[in-house]
Amino acid sequence: MQKIINPSINQWQSLCERPALPQLDVQELVQQIFTEIKRNGDEAVKKYTGFFDDALIENVKVSAEAIEAAAQQIPQDLKQAIQLAKSNIEQFHASQQEQKKVIETTPGVECWRESRPIDRVGIYIPGGSAPLFSTVLMLGIPAKIAGCKEIVLCSPPDKNGNINPAILYTAQLVGITAVYAIGGIQAIGALAIGTESITKVDKIFGPGNQYVTAAKQAALNYGVAIDLPAGPSEVLVITDATCNPDFVAADLLSQAEHGADSQVILLSDSEGVTDAVIKALQQQTEALPRKETVLKCLQNSKAIVLATINDCVNFSNLYAPEHLIIASDSAESFVNLITTAGSVFLGNYSCESAGDYASGTNHTLPTNGYAKSYSGVSLDSFVKKITFQKISAAGLQNIGPAIELMAAAEQLQAHKNAVTIRLKSLNNV
Amino acid sequence: MQKIINPSINQWQSLCERPALPQLDVQELVQQIFTEIKRNGDEAVKKYTGFFDDALIENVKVSAEAIEAAAQQIPQDLKQAIQLAKSNIEQFHASQQEQKKVIETTPGVECWRESRPIDRVGIYIPGGSAPLFSTVLMLGIPAKIAGCKEIVLCSPPDKNGNINPAILYTAQLVGITAVYAIGGIQAIGALAIGTESITKVDKIFGPGNQYVTAAKQAALNYGVAIDLPAGPSEVLVITDATCNPDFVAADLLSQAEHGADSQVILLSDSEGVTDAVIKALQQQTEALPRKETVLKCLQNSKAIVLATINDCVNFSNLYAPEHLIIASDSAESFVNLITTAGSVFLGNYSCESAGDYASGTNHTLPTNGYAKSYSGVSLDSFVKKITFQKISAAGLQNIGPAIELMAAAEQLQAHKNAVTIRLKSLNNV
Repeated sequence: MQKIINPSINQWQSLCERPALPQLDVQELVQQIFTEIKRNGDEAVKKYTGFFDDALIENVKVSAEAIEAAAQQIPQDLKQAIQLAKSNIEQFHASQQEQKKVIETTPGVECWRESRPIDRVGIYIPGGSAPLFSTVLMLGIPAKIAGCKEIVLCSPPDKNGNINPAILYTAQLVGITAVYAIGGIQAIGALAIGTESITKVDKIFGPGNQYVTAAKQAALNYGVAIDLPAGPSEVLVITDATCNPDFVAADLLSQAEHGADSQVILLSDSEGVTDAVIKALQQQTEALPRKETVLKCLQNSKAIVLATINDCVNFSNLYAPEHLIIASDSAESFVNLITTAGSVFLGNYSCESAGDYASGTNHTLPTNGYAKSYSGVSLDSFVKKITFQKISAAGLQNIGPAIELMAAAEQLQAHKNAVTIRLKSLNNV
Repeated sequence: MQKIINPSINQWQSLCERPALPQLDVQELVQQIFTEIKRNGDEAVKKYTGFFDDALIENVKVSAEAIEAAAQQIPQDLKQAIQLAKSNIEQFHASQQEQKKVIETTPGVECWRESRPIDRVGIYIPGGSAPLFSTVLMLGIPAKIAGCKEIVLCSPPDKNGNINPAILYTAQLVGITAVYAIGGIQAIGALAIGTESITKVDKIFGPGNQYVTAAKQAALNYGVAIDLPAGPSEVLVITDATCNPDFVAADLLSQAEHGADSQVILLSDSEGVTDAVIKALQQQTEALPRKETVLKCLQNSKAIVLATINDCVNFSNLYAPEHLIIASDSAESFVNLITTAGSVFLGNYSCESAGDYASGTNHTLPTNGYAKSYSGVSLDSFVKKITFQKISAAGLQNIGPAIELMAAAEQLQAHKNAVTIRLKSLNNV
């Protein structure tokens, strides 16, 4: 971990820069697979599943029996843990439902918004060694609360054609309507285009490797929306003398274990605290199964000492972290200063892991600086907010003359006419 | 206008298809201009302004004096009309502010969201014959309510280097912080990259031609967000025996005058009403200054008769119109059936023009079928909603064991450790 003491404010911008990501040029491959899916449907999806996942699958759709059987394999204590997380995530996301508020902007002119679910959503869950069933909770629960009619899930099969049972159990628990044992570009292509067995969806959610990311970008050209731009996960921790350096080190490591390209930033108003955290980092790293990944990540990481905690928050706003932890007893006093972050963890017991799994907030968040302009996934991500207006004859008489003047000034005569013809008919009554 | 009587439900999907848009391949041009802006800043922007707009500008930024002088040129009645529209748009968008709701998902675990403005936003207003000052209202007002620090506006200059005074007046009225007399690819490039005089922004809003659209897409690669995918404007009108065919025809024409590629759909449960509207269309078209454009648009347009108004609403949901007018005295009884639209106009006096200018709703809406997954521009478009969590020691004791189990099952040992180290320290107290 690189230690930087009191950098001048001119250096902040460059300290905030993320390392350039290796660009993998897979556009052509994505186009080829999408084109084949468009032509051959399921057959193409199965072909590429054989090719990339080394799995021969007869049906892309996972059967109800297989899902039922998977649930039997999950230990009771893990089931209870997942259910506790589900309950918290449900409460928080249900609180994001918007109440209808009718605003009479002018007498006789009523405007309001109503939310409607996005009909069909697709959730992508990566495969590999770690089964990310927590992401099934984070995406499936708000989709269900929103009322999405079809909530389909794709996850790559292992060599025997199976999906990890914890993913299947969680999918069933949250009410996923169909699970497909497919992954990678071919899964995103199937969701974007549709096949004989796979629903074409309106929006695709979920994390993935560079192939999945490129495929999600390509899906945009098929009229499908996506959740967020992709990027490596990151945490920024602000510490003062009231933090516990061991806790802080553990939080930094929980981010570092995600991958060598994860971003970990430590800020403090105290060099002593910084050194204590760095020491704890070294000690704790030794015991980790993903030690090598962690060490690579820490090589790119920075510990920066600034004059005050206010400066630390200002630096953080410029960096725009996905996760921001304020490890301080007075964390709450800095909330109003925070302008840019994905999710914020206040105080010494609010660890990022809590938000990753079970506090109730969503863990699908803007990274790579996108917190400057994007929010994390929430109930809003699964609905459209439609505006309505109801204008009475009297209402149109109140605002009509203004509309006529503005439309005429924009040289849109037919826009003006739509008002004029109504006002005339009212004058003739 | 093509008339279709009682199409079978199998035909609905193809009836909903938009005509394919001519793809203009301007990617290379966009890349070239962006690269030059990155290298040469203002100089490159001025060069392309000379090239595309035939205007030699010394300063890209419009002076305070020029803005002041423009305001003097606007007639008093138009100023009052713009101010009435502003007041209504302000009221409706201010009502979209979210109240902070702290949810205690488990004792000791508090979660909430807080909105923060996107710091820097750019608004693009096209040039050409019609000065779209109404779009300045629709984008500038919510940006101001959100609290965006920098709200900059770009609009192409005329040959004398000037921007239409109505645009400048409205920009000043709503509190735009800087106006640049630049347009097209070079304006979007300047906003996405930044130059000596032009702020690099976090998000770009506003309509534009194919060059602007391509440039907005390219801006995404510079970490900048955009408002909505682009597409031609469209209206779908549902009519029954209680509609006024003259009003309906006027509404269809107000859409048709936008351009030959505008989409206009008429639905009814009555062939008689349909014929009456078509007749009124023919009569009203004759008097329009944009008659030729309107006639081209109507060639691509459809009038479809279905069995019931319920069927009409179902068809509309499939079509996903940008604007939906229900021209019926009982319009409100269909609101709950509507699942997909950008903005909805209820009853015989709620013309689309009202929402385009002055009712209070936003006129920047998802088109080309994107209403399936996108909402129109609202206050939400100018803020990030940051999640916060505050977990007490007792709170972590309540949810910590569940987090440990889930993290272990996902093979993320460091995630588990972040909880374990805290729980251990609490047990040792």
